[in-house]
Amino acid sequence: MFNFEVTVLGASGGPDAGDTQCFMVRPSGSRDLRSICVDGGAGVGQIARILSQAKDMSRPQLIESFYFNDFEPADQFFDPRTPVKLGFPTDLVENVSSNTWKRALQFYKGIKEYYITHAHLDHIAAMVMNSPMAYDGECISGKKLWGLPFTMDAIKRHVFNDLIWPDLLDGTASRLKLDSLAELRLHNCETFPQWDIIPLKVHHGFGVSEPSSRIYSTIYLFIDKHSGSGIVICGDLEQDHASDKLPLLEEAWDYIAKHISHRRLKGIIIECSSWTATQQTELYGHMSPTYLVPALNRLQRQYQEPDALRDLEVVITHVKKAISDKDPRLIILKELRDQAHATQLHVRFSIAIQGYTFQF
Amino acid sequence: MFNFEVTVLGASGGPDAGDTQCFMVRPSGSRDLRSICVDGGAGVGQIARILSQAKDMSRPQLIESFYFNDFEPADQFFDPRTPVKLGFPTDLVENVSSNTWKRALQFYKGIKEYYITHAHLDHIAAMVMNSPMAYDGECISGKKLWGLPFTMDAIKRHVFNDLIWPDLLDGTASRLKLDSLAELRLHNCETFPQWDIIPLKVHHGFGVSEPSSRIYSTIYLFIDKHSGSGIVICGDLEQDHASDKLPLLEEAWDYIAKHISHRRLKGIIIECSSWTATQQTELYGHMSPTYLVPALNRLQRQYQEPDALRDLEVVITHVKKAISDKDPRLIILKELRDQAHATQLHVRFSIAIQGYTFQF
Repeated sequence: MFNFEVTVLGASGGPDAGDTQCFMVRPSGSRDLRSICVDGGAGVGQIARILSQAKDMSRPQLIESFYFNDFEPADQFFDPRTPVKLGFPTDLVENVSSNTWKRALQFYKGIKEYYITHAHLDHIAAMVMNSPMAYDGECISGKKLWGLPFTMDAIKRHVFNDLIWPDLLDGTASRLKLDSLAELRLHNCETFPQWDIIPLKVHHGFGVSEPSSRIYSTIYLFIDKHSGSGIVICGDLEQDHASDKLPLLEEAWDYIAKHISHRRLKGIIIECSSWTATQQTELYGHMSPTYLVPALNRLQRQYQEPDALRDLEVVITHVKKAISDKDPRLIILKELRDQAHATQLHVRFSIAIQGYTFQF
Repeated sequence: MFNFEVTVLGASGGPDAGDTQCFMVRPSGSRDLRSICVDGGAGVGQIARILSQAKDMSRPQLIESFYFNDFEPADQFFDPRTPVKLGFPTDLVENVSSNTWKRALQFYKGIKEYYITHAHLDHIAAMVMNSPMAYDGECISGKKLWGLPFTMDAIKRHVFNDLIWPDLLDGTASRLKLDSLAELRLHNCETFPQWDIIPLKVHHGFGVSEPSSRIYSTIYLFIDKHSGSGIVICGDLEQDHASDKLPLLEEAWDYIAKHISHRRLKGIIIECSSWTATQQTELYGHMSPTYLVPALNRLQRQYQEPDALRDLEVVITHVKKAISDKDPRLIILKELRDQAHATQLHVRFSIAIQGYTFQF
């Protein structure tokens, strides 16, 4: 039985813009349009495209690639056992009628909360640019923005300030409300009260202008209180450095292993921006297979049971478009599978592809 | 004879994100990939899609719409006399080989300068998110960001600050250099020294949190020194208010009429965000046909010659995706033509459509 349904609105790690990270999450099998999003790098424009593309399910499913071929067959990107389908769940699409843009707006109206991992533009841009729609006619809806204080402070101060974007947070009548979460603290989800969401702070590189200052990001752990099942959705992150007094990723794994049994852990959506050959100094606060496979092995060890993560769904997000003959997502997928196999880590790797819905 | 070649990388007025305003400008018939961009709401990702879509010119040209139909025939969006074609000029595309992503990167590498109209996210997001590529391997290239001081200050302080985006402006070795222009002052274009570019400041609504503070934007006037021909590319703007001590749009028209003869004025790319029925209070610093047609009439009057703007190419950008049965771009195009006809304004109206190249 599934508990979580995650539609990928965007999962690019750049440097292209427009289709960057945004995951729409709802309870599996839910028949209304309410949802919450983790990050806001894609939004209503991408929803419209997904609705349009998924209309004709009889066509072979091809993924925009722009490398060896402009489009690649979809099945290359997923583990064959992984429950994943093109488009939004059929039940939802049947609920909305009319033209594609109006349908997309109904989906947008259904987004009640955003959980932001960090304030870098590729994780918030579409959420920001879509926000005037929350004030518009048929589409009026309140939305809540959540995140750890470092994220919320940056968004408030540097984005909704009339200079970078109209200050739509202003005033008590605002349709957008911003609120901070506390690290490692259970937060009861307002839209889906059967879920607790726990933000775990992680490292994400260093400042450029102040190389001694750390940049932070967030992992969200979702726990379904009825079933005890959970998923993990990560923002950008890097492996802890040997010199870190606080090994944050280690702490996050520790928290996850303590609060959710490995049998109940249904999936991890995690970044792997660059391929194995990338030097550590050129990861800029991100993961490569070299670091991600050992990190997953460490999580497995936290469970103190060999093979604890067998058949766990690991969905890779935020792959950077690199200069390459072959799609870097396919290169990284193979590298991850090979390196995991070599270390007896038997998880199922897939790539987060825009427009596809994963069941966990 | 044409002097300016403008490829539309993005022209949406939101609330969708990813394909917002960016115009790639080069001298007509130039055979290398050097270009400058006005605004940066779209970028390398959109370039890749344009290259991919334009590969098969034998297919009927359909424009993504998502209203009455998901796709509409292209010719509805252009004046039949307007010189406009799908894709980048053939000469340029023949210059680059290899896969679509590498080709797109060559085009991105060719962008030497950005002229930003204002710092709102829909005008800068892709430029920002693409920027790490300026440091990457084969793609290394210096880029200059230009704008009036209010724009440059906002970008420097609120975007490239490690919180919203890594501070890639930092240090003398930076590949991105930011510099301010002076209002109403001739600026000699570094990439195409045959061009002078003049920034004209205009109004763009009021702050939300401080409703008494004006928000500003920029019109860029391009003058080709050899031919004396010019084009005007506008950022978001609104009609001057009756209470304005400085009627900035009036001043801009005055400057344009004084510095370029109406016979040499080849085109105006200008926003018309909302349709005629929109109340003035709901324009939020933007144009509707109600205001744009009189504004163009005023420019015509500045030339002190009746019918001075006959056959001028007026290309409409930044139409907002509204709740509608029909594509708002087609509604606005008809309204503009009808209202212009009624006032004896004989310009040629077209819509700025992503992926098309206009000649001026």
